[in-house]
Amino acid sequence: MTAPGLERLSLNTATTKRWTLPEAVAGCVEAGIGGIGLWRDRVAETGVRRAARLVRDAGLTVTTLCRGGFLTATGPRERAAALADNRRAIEEAAELGTGTLVLVVGGLPEGSRDLPGARTAVQDAIAELAPYAAELGVRLAVEPLHPMFCADRAVVSTLGQALDLAEGFPVEQVGVVVDSYHVWWDPQLAEQIARAGERIAAYQVCDWVTPLPADTLLGRGHVGDGHIDVRALTEAVDTAGYTGWIEVEIFNQAIWDTPGARTLRTVVERHLAHVAPR
Amino acid sequence: MTAPGLERLSLNTATTKRWTLPEAVAGCVEAGIGGIGLWRDRVAETGVRRAARLVRDAGLTVTTLCRGGFLTATGPRERAAALADNRRAIEEAAELGTGTLVLVVGGLPEGSRDLPGARTAVQDAIAELAPYAAELGVRLAVEPLHPMFCADRAVVSTLGQALDLAEGFPVEQVGVVVDSYHVWWDPQLAEQIARAGERIAAYQVCDWVTPLPADTLLGRGHVGDGHIDVRALTEAVDTAGYTGWIEVEIFNQAIWDTPGARTLRTVVERHLAHVAPR
Repeated sequence: MTAPGLERLSLNTATTKRWTLPEAVAGCVEAGIGGIGLWRDRVAETGVRRAARLVRDAGLTVTTLCRGGFLTATGPRERAAALADNRRAIEEAAELGTGTLVLVVGGLPEGSRDLPGARTAVQDAIAELAPYAAELGVRLAVEPLHPMFCADRAVVSTLGQALDLAEGFPVEQVGVVVDSYHVWWDPQLAEQIARAGERIAAYQVCDWVTPLPADTLLGRGHVGDGHIDVRALTEAVDTAGYTGWIEVEIFNQAIWDTPGARTLRTVVERHLAHVAPR
Repeated sequence: MTAPGLERLSLNTATTKRWTLPEAVAGCVEAGIGGIGLWRDRVAETGVRRAARLVRDAGLTVTTLCRGGFLTATGPRERAAALADNRRAIEEAAELGTGTLVLVVGGLPEGSRDLPGARTAVQDAIAELAPYAAELGVRLAVEPLHPMFCADRAVVSTLGQALDLAEGFPVEQVGVVVDSYHVWWDPQLAEQIARAGERIAAYQVCDWVTPLPADTLLGRGHVGDGHIDVRALTEAVDTAGYTGWIEVEIFNQAIWDTPGARTLRTVVERHLAHVAPR
């Protein structure tokens, strides 16, 4: 079913934001894409059980579930609520048949300037969640986000920092996500990818385009449209021993406004041109 | 002349963008601020010699000249032009009586994805410039810029990376700039500041405010308005042995639209509340 050269390509459904889950599944099948990375909100619309069946019946592999996290709250009630939500996310991942739950760890708590404290809170929360996830066959995948999201989304900003965190846990319990958009600038990237090895639980790609748009969350482009040497990054990730899926995850208003099938054609073209082995 | 508690406070004139140099000098004197960080464009308007006399006659210290850099061009003509412009900047710094020329090293060359190559170009250019600067009593101060500027402004993104670069040269020739806005998120910040020691050639402060504005260059706020623990950062810089000026450098349209004298009152208040020793 998978088209030649696309064996590792997965569509993260954030890329085709307007598609419902059934539409995204049909779109992947049509495009010859064998993997799909799911978001919890789209899964919830369909219902977890039905979503799981839909994807399985289409012969697709669920490569990740996005996302758990937001673990920096320090108030006991907020903290308990975050942990409960993450346990639900772990259960959903298990039911969907993916072994990888992506964690965006959360920014500074409201009004706080205590970055070290927020980082400790993340570590403590992961320590509570990881054994439960492992019981259900799910690995927590800590995603370092670009430092421009440190205040409001993720106090884990580099791959090295994510690995420092992950290495406090068994390799089958906690891994990391390498996302080209978040890590490409890092002067320590080569050595940290080599270090990451089998901690790499997911690899996501898109490009860094300039100028950044008004909403910096939406500044991502198709691979090949920006400044990142995605081929070199992919080779580094492969050399580190990662043989898994390569998810395309693009947040971009213009791409969201493009018909999904056309977006998938571009995703496939760019994968063949910039990512798949030559 | 300097008001109590303001002994180390310097105004970087980018903060009061609408003021001419004579206005900025008069504003500092009026506010009891003894240091001033100058930008080349404003100096050029006044003329370097006249600017130097103006500042000296007012009893102000020129804490930095901003800026040299943009050293990533690889074409021989562009490269020669960049080096020539930096030599002029060095000469201007010397004439203005400051020992510190801030370098924003430049982003990826047009159309290039070769980040390692751009970084090597920076190193090579600094090797050509540093001895000349030292002859004139000027130290090159490499400023790591926030990673969100890696593509278009500075391929040096962390303090550790800036130190790796600086340490290839004698300490009196090449130092680094610590700017709160650019470095606050860095998980290695504490250890890198301690490592920096006497390489710290300048210390600049402002705050990280969210949400980021449409133009991410202008997302800086007055100290105390955002997410950075500036007091903790200042203590770390002091502990590393830095006893020099603390420059306030804020790029923010709303602050630029505020009368300069009022901005300086806020700068002074925030310095006393968040930066000066309690």
